[in-house]
Amino acid sequence: MNEFALIDLIKAECALQRADVRIGNGDDAAAVAIPDGHELLVCTDTLVAGRHFPMDTRPEDIGWKSLAVNLSDLAAMGATPAFALLALCLPSADSDWVRAFARGFADLARLHDVALIGGDTSRGPLTITVTALGFAPHGRALKRSGARPGDTIVVCGDIGLAAAGLHHLTTMPERSRDGLDDSKSSMQRWLDALNRPTPQIEQGLLLRHYATSAIDISDGLAADLGHVLRQSGVGADIQLPSIPGFEALSQSFGADLAIRWVLCGGDDYVLLATLSPDRFDEARAAFQRSGVMLTPIGNVTAAPGLRVHDIRGSALALDKAGWDHFA
Amino acid sequence: MNEFALIDLIKAECALQRADVRIGNGDDAAAVAIPDGHELLVCTDTLVAGRHFPMDTRPEDIGWKSLAVNLSDLAAMGATPAFALLALCLPSADSDWVRAFARGFADLARLHDVALIGGDTSRGPLTITVTALGFAPHGRALKRSGARPGDTIVVCGDIGLAAAGLHHLTTMPERSRDGLDDSKSSMQRWLDALNRPTPQIEQGLLLRHYATSAIDISDGLAADLGHVLRQSGVGADIQLPSIPGFEALSQSFGADLAIRWVLCGGDDYVLLATLSPDRFDEARAAFQRSGVMLTPIGNVTAAPGLRVHDIRGSALALDKAGWDHFA
Repeated sequence: MNEFALIDLIKAECALQRADVRIGNGDDAAAVAIPDGHELLVCTDTLVAGRHFPMDTRPEDIGWKSLAVNLSDLAAMGATPAFALLALCLPSADSDWVRAFARGFADLARLHDVALIGGDTSRGPLTITVTALGFAPHGRALKRSGARPGDTIVVCGDIGLAAAGLHHLTTMPERSRDGLDDSKSSMQRWLDALNRPTPQIEQGLLLRHYATSAIDISDGLAADLGHVLRQSGVGADIQLPSIPGFEALSQSFGADLAIRWVLCGGDDYVLLATLSPDRFDEARAAFQRSGVMLTPIGNVTAAPGLRVHDIRGSALALDKAGWDHFA
Repeated sequence: MNEFALIDLIKAECALQRADVRIGNGDDAAAVAIPDGHELLVCTDTLVAGRHFPMDTRPEDIGWKSLAVNLSDLAAMGATPAFALLALCLPSADSDWVRAFARGFADLARLHDVALIGGDTSRGPLTITVTALGFAPHGRALKRSGARPGDTIVVCGDIGLAAAGLHHLTTMPERSRDGLDDSKSSMQRWLDALNRPTPQIEQGLLLRHYATSAIDISDGLAADLGHVLRQSGVGADIQLPSIPGFEALSQSFGADLAIRWVLCGGDDYVLLATLSPDRFDEARAAFQRSGVMLTPIGNVTAAPGLRVHDIRGSALALDKAGWDHFA
């Protein structure tokens, strides 16, 4: 199977019509229209086999996740996704693998009306680079840099689940990975968090009306909140027991692992935002009407640095080394 | 050196201001404005070490080429480039390598006022995926699908030089790769064609006024002209001796290698286009005024297929296998 046959296979799985795609997949570049009064939002992220996902991850899940991590970045900007490009580096031209990969990618793309408008296939070590494009009204995209002292810090979902899922995969016996029964539903939930993260597009669009800053938690809550704090020139206090997911993980795995996973686990793809406390009740009501979570976990301070308080209110000593990475 | 330090280093080398970049590098996604009355053109291409360039290629050249192959795709659409994203997969966090790579990338980016607005760095086998974005007036982008019987087929530069450069690298003694003296200036030209291809942006903008179809020659003249013919539902006759570069390569390397390189060598990044013969003189005059090449090499036919005629006018039997690839 040659490059062009692989591309045809991917195009067939990912077929989706949008009126604003003027020239789609199959020319030197794609041409798309951007709605009047809107800016283009664009980001790119690479997944490397064995680094960003275990080598034996199902191709459907790799396809889903490669798009999800990029849509999550658009969500953090308050953007509406529209288009994607896929650069796929494959060790062999395995049509079954590619079809399953494309199906996972397409399942998520269809949920958000995202058209695959271009890409590239190469032979090489398995890596997937997706570029995602979307829109936001001029000047309305959410930035990392707008947090102000006094703002409430919120997250839009459970944190640490993907890290628990990865722990589960690397520590449980091979045979029990499949056919998890009902009593193992939380295991399945952790694995889903790892393999099928849900980009919080709707939450990002809601946050655009309320938030002073936003980011998606991909490197870990501490690292990503750290970006917001540095880029906003502020600090923060957060309450560990307020972080959704922390209590359940503590009960299942003990506090040490739970602390590490909620603060430094990463791969959450949950939005973190700051907003004025005056707007919090209104924002929470809007989130409740949409049936999505908005949980306060702390406050922005003028004093720089991030202070994490445990259940007794005392500050944890954070292992700075855990925040930096090259992954 | 961690991911964030590497990113800072790349950003410093590639610093370039554009007023239409509303949110640049350093947030979850970039935000850019698209000019009124224009479409966005976007493409992505990956270079894999050892496949798309020799492992010992200088990092400056890899940086240049990774952007060049993408700007060449925009050129083939008649687009004005504006922005790029860089997804860089590196085996190690080698700051000297990254600085040199970024310098090569930035050298070309500055020539075309292209702002680096985002990206990603990962640890993994050396692969570089660039996404390039540009503009064209609504409905004016050049497509592969517009060629009509009777059209003249033109190319905008010499073909086969990069293949000669690669041959030179793989067959010449190691010691003579450096310090090529003046008598070896054509060798240097072949190596430059391989390592520092020049995206034909100006030629693409000129072709927008004349061409019925266009493509950039990246996979080889026969394969890329083949895309135009299939997507336009037509065929073609081309004259081998008319292809710029063929005579010189024949003299240096013999006809067999020269034929293979001009038809199937690839890595040329020269534009190929079709235009009505009525418009040819006007187009050639416009190209001459701009000091760039426009050379007729054949004609579009209603009969499907590609027929390549040699110096005596007889058709060559083309090795179909040489056209397909997965690279």
